[in-house]
Amino acid sequence: MAYKAPLRDFTFLLKDVLDIDRYSNVPGFADASFDLVQQILEEGAKFAEGVIAPLDRVGDREGCKWNPDGTVTTPTGWKDAYKQMVEAGWTSLGAEAEYGGQGMPAVVAMAFGQMTAAASPAFSMYPGLTRGAAAALHASGSEEQKAMYLPKLISGEWGGTMNLTEPQCGTDLGLIRTKAVPNGDGSYRISGQKIWISSGEHDFTENIVHLVLARIEGAPQGVKGISLFVVPKFIPDADGNPGERNSLQCAGLEHKMGIHGNSTCVMVYEDAKGWLVGEENAGLKAMFVMMNEARLGTGIQGLSIGTAAYIDAVEFAKDRLQGRSLTGPKNADGPADPIIVHPDVRRMLMESKALIEGCRAFALWTALHADLQDSEDEAVATKARDYMGLLTPIVKAYLTDRGFHVASNGMQVHGGSGYTEHYAASQRLRDARITLIYEGTNGVQALDLVGRKLASNGGRAVMTFFAEIDAWVAEHQGNEAIRPWLEGLAGVKAQLQEATFWLMQNGMQNPDNAGAASTDYLHLFGLTCTAYMWALSAEAAQARIEAGDSDPFYAQKLATGRFFLERILPDAGAHLAKLKTGAAAVMALEADAF
Amino acid sequence: MAYKAPLRDFTFLLKDVLDIDRYSNVPGFADASFDLVQQILEEGAKFAEGVIAPLDRVGDREGCKWNPDGTVTTPTGWKDAYKQMVEAGWTSLGAEAEYGGQGMPAVVAMAFGQMTAAASPAFSMYPGLTRGAAAALHASGSEEQKAMYLPKLISGEWGGTMNLTEPQCGTDLGLIRTKAVPNGDGSYRISGQKIWISSGEHDFTENIVHLVLARIEGAPQGVKGISLFVVPKFIPDADGNPGERNSLQCAGLEHKMGIHGNSTCVMVYEDAKGWLVGEENAGLKAMFVMMNEARLGTGIQGLSIGTAAYIDAVEFAKDRLQGRSLTGPKNADGPADPIIVHPDVRRMLMESKALIEGCRAFALWTALHADLQDSEDEAVATKARDYMGLLTPIVKAYLTDRGFHVASNGMQVHGGSGYTEHYAASQRLRDARITLIYEGTNGVQALDLVGRKLASNGGRAVMTFFAEIDAWVAEHQGNEAIRPWLEGLAGVKAQLQEATFWLMQNGMQNPDNAGAASTDYLHLFGLTCTAYMWALSAEAAQARIEAGDSDPFYAQKLATGRFFLERILPDAGAHLAKLKTGAAAVMALEADAF
Repeated sequence: MAYKAPLRDFTFLLKDVLDIDRYSNVPGFADASFDLVQQILEEGAKFAEGVIAPLDRVGDREGCKWNPDGTVTTPTGWKDAYKQMVEAGWTSLGAEAEYGGQGMPAVVAMAFGQMTAAASPAFSMYPGLTRGAAAALHASGSEEQKAMYLPKLISGEWGGTMNLTEPQCGTDLGLIRTKAVPNGDGSYRISGQKIWISSGEHDFTENIVHLVLARIEGAPQGVKGISLFVVPKFIPDADGNPGERNSLQCAGLEHKMGIHGNSTCVMVYEDAKGWLVGEENAGLKAMFVMMNEARLGTGIQGLSIGTAAYIDAVEFAKDRLQGRSLTGPKNADGPADPIIVHPDVRRMLMESKALIEGCRAFALWTALHADLQDSEDEAVATKARDYMGLLTPIVKAYLTDRGFHVASNGMQVHGGSGYTEHYAASQRLRDARITLIYEGTNGVQALDLVGRKLASNGGRAVMTFFAEIDAWVAEHQGNEAIRPWLEGLAGVKAQLQEATFWLMQNGMQNPDNAGAASTDYLHLFGLTCTAYMWALSAEAAQARIEAGDSDPFYAQKLATGRFFLERILPDAGAHLAKLKTGAAAVMALEADAF
Repeated sequence: MAYKAPLRDFTFLLKDVLDIDRYSNVPGFADASFDLVQQILEEGAKFAEGVIAPLDRVGDREGCKWNPDGTVTTPTGWKDAYKQMVEAGWTSLGAEAEYGGQGMPAVVAMAFGQMTAAASPAFSMYPGLTRGAAAALHASGSEEQKAMYLPKLISGEWGGTMNLTEPQCGTDLGLIRTKAVPNGDGSYRISGQKIWISSGEHDFTENIVHLVLARIEGAPQGVKGISLFVVPKFIPDADGNPGERNSLQCAGLEHKMGIHGNSTCVMVYEDAKGWLVGEENAGLKAMFVMMNEARLGTGIQGLSIGTAAYIDAVEFAKDRLQGRSLTGPKNADGPADPIIVHPDVRRMLMESKALIEGCRAFALWTALHADLQDSEDEAVATKARDYMGLLTPIVKAYLTDRGFHVASNGMQVHGGSGYTEHYAASQRLRDARITLIYEGTNGVQALDLVGRKLASNGGRAVMTFFAEIDAWVAEHQGNEAIRPWLEGLAGVKAQLQEATFWLMQNGMQNPDNAGAASTDYLHLFGLTCTAYMWALSAEAAQARIEAGDSDPFYAQKLATGRFFLERILPDAGAHLAKLKTGAAAVMALEADAF
């Protein structure tokens, strides 16, 4: 089915659940009243539905083409759509006003990002990486670098990339070999090979700005000797226009299972001219700004592909006539009933809907905290920064894992049709699968959560989160109408707390306990966050109903939330039981026994 | 990695766990001593590893080619490998001796089938469907038909197919439109279009025997008016050789997500000559013999693809150096440790191993019951027939669902490498996905289980199963060394029993309750069966250890079984909690609300 943006749900989340008008004193929100935001999202939906979505299947079929001169041709129609995107200003929605951006809050930019990623995940990666490169330069670049690159990146005239991986190093960046030799004039000669560089070469923009991790000659071994460089494809001349062609090249494209429309490049740097971004040997920290952006973006991408898969599955389930309802014909005049009458089909659609809506709320709530980091109220800002650290790995891993599951549900609803490439279900599943891997595998996210984020500042972030849930539950104790959500939330929070204490005790004792527990812990955390979102949503919907609002949307929201409690939340107990068994069984065998 | 057949595990399962030498009084086993079976499987492993496995990646890359004359060219090397397979007699391993088969027990044929399906799932479908067609003809064909077709199908000289699906009907076979008009000479003219016909056309054999469901003119509407026909590509002449070319044609191939090496055909019949198999209007029952074979085969296929994916993942995890163990370097002289040291990687491998070994035991135990159906002891035969009915949907759906999960684990272990088509991980995942869909989607299997199999003969099969587990647990109560497995098995059996009683009460009341519970119920059943298998395996391994056998295999088996108890079995509680919430939340929304 043609992609249809979830505008009704965005309205509910931004107005009824998050009530963004409360934050008019936070930078960015002053010019972002709910009414204006709604208009922006309506226009954004038109763009995503009308311009981007029609390109998605073409991209899968055609893929990108590498030409012997090192250029890359994107699929038919993609370059033109990107041009329209830039001209309409969509690439700069959330970007800094001082460099030409529109300065909209992250929560608004992320809602728009969900629509473009659902319309075409492969397409949306081009502006997504550019946005990440701009954020990294904004955080760590010199004033000169910012002046030179940010306006072009923010406008979308130039593209941006992140170059981390090399054949011998993905997760373990300490193994990077790409080297940087000072030229004596403040620039460096960068040499090495980078692989899996998304959007590394394409025909969208007149210039591409590569952010490259490399090791300065004589730098310490490991991650402490890695620096970040900006290495433009064309070196900007005195007027800031693309000048000399730099000695870097796309040497080929990867053949991948999905996201065919995005160019995944082997990049070769041979004495390419680059300039240090931030301090020597502090490249990883500088790159982490971009990585964190990319991790949130990847979480959104996973959720969004699931959303697109769900929309397709609903359409198929309403159209396909096969069998009769167990409780008597529902389409007596037709040869059979639409398969949406079958409880097991309905189960898959309800599960998908409950996951998508819960994760969508979770994503926007997280984005709101990105905005609140800039609050003038130091307590609010500190809490927001704590939450961003804590939540980023959860958003990345939980949303992508669940997004893939929803995409798999979508294929299953299609039956045999879904396995043929005639329908989009195969593409959705293939596209979704990468989101569990790149920008740090979901296992790496889980380890980041239990090994780093949980303990930072003495566990302040997670304790604040528990206190927030306790306070919310206490505040709404008298609200009988939402009692199932209060109980579900309090229950899963208690399970998460038990798991957290278990980790504190046992992870210290033996770090393998933490590693062995990490993925189940992350899922338990994701379930807790979405249970909180469903409690907030149920409370808001119930309040609307009690105020006499007759829009059926609210009763539907409650029904979907009930499904979440009854059919998804029970997984929490299994995660808790598993993780508390520790590392013994996980590590019992010698490597040779596998 | 090159495929390596699990001969050591087969030996353990066939000798220590199932002890097949006990059954020498059952037809088929008389000539199948354990020692002979072991020799056969060793030879079979060589064939699967050496001849079939090398073809698998080629098949994915090249796919099958449809030619304008309606012929289909299989991938490079496939035709020759099939010829070798026929010449070595592998296609006839489990087939009836009276028609030239080797008459080996199903449990042996299924062990061999696991090896070929792991070596190449797409390749193994060609002989697999031929075997199914032979079984259906053996069960329902006339003596003349059997004499004409069975020797050629069993030898593998001719191929076989099953033609059910049409564009407007997949699951709902009552909607079949293909028609059959009597010619007056005992033959019929068959006309219609069939889709998704696996192995429908290829270059392996000189003839292809299509089994086709069609509606005889004037037959009743729905499933009660469907008959089965044998429609050969070339009509056998008086000498039984391929004669007149029949008017049927492969009109094209589907473009699919995976199993590219198998031809998935659109078949067009235009007044093709066919002969009734079995009774008029009793086609569905006759075809069910083939469907049940295919369902078991599909379960095996899902498990086998998972096995191949696991082997690849283990190799990658031992080779890939990235990061350091949380408990100190394990490869201090190298640049980093192999990723198999990381607990979350180990968790994925252990989960895969525990699922594969548990499901492998379950598959062989089921196949043994297929053999025991022919026991001269009527009680044994009845129980075996009951079990085959009950277990077939579970083997099909549980093994494919878990096989896909294992394939997804395999990709995750590979990280970014797994998403490129350079490694086999993508093919494994893509190939595995179909097994959840064809031969009746896993949702259809779940409905077959709760709606038909559970209640047949007053629930006799499931009650026998419960009694068998109770008796086994009681018998081994004193065996302290295997207490965790006894407790785990008794616990999950109690949960399954509770779910079964819930279904009996609530499914009657409202059939949607049964439909809404069906998938969770099937998974709970699958977990119970594999818990039983792990208990049997633990008992057998422990007995070996106590007898002084120092092969580390047995301690490894216990360690893997402990992982199953601690890290997989806890899902049972979540399935029970979910299914007992019934249909209310599942069916709460109107179709328009999705």
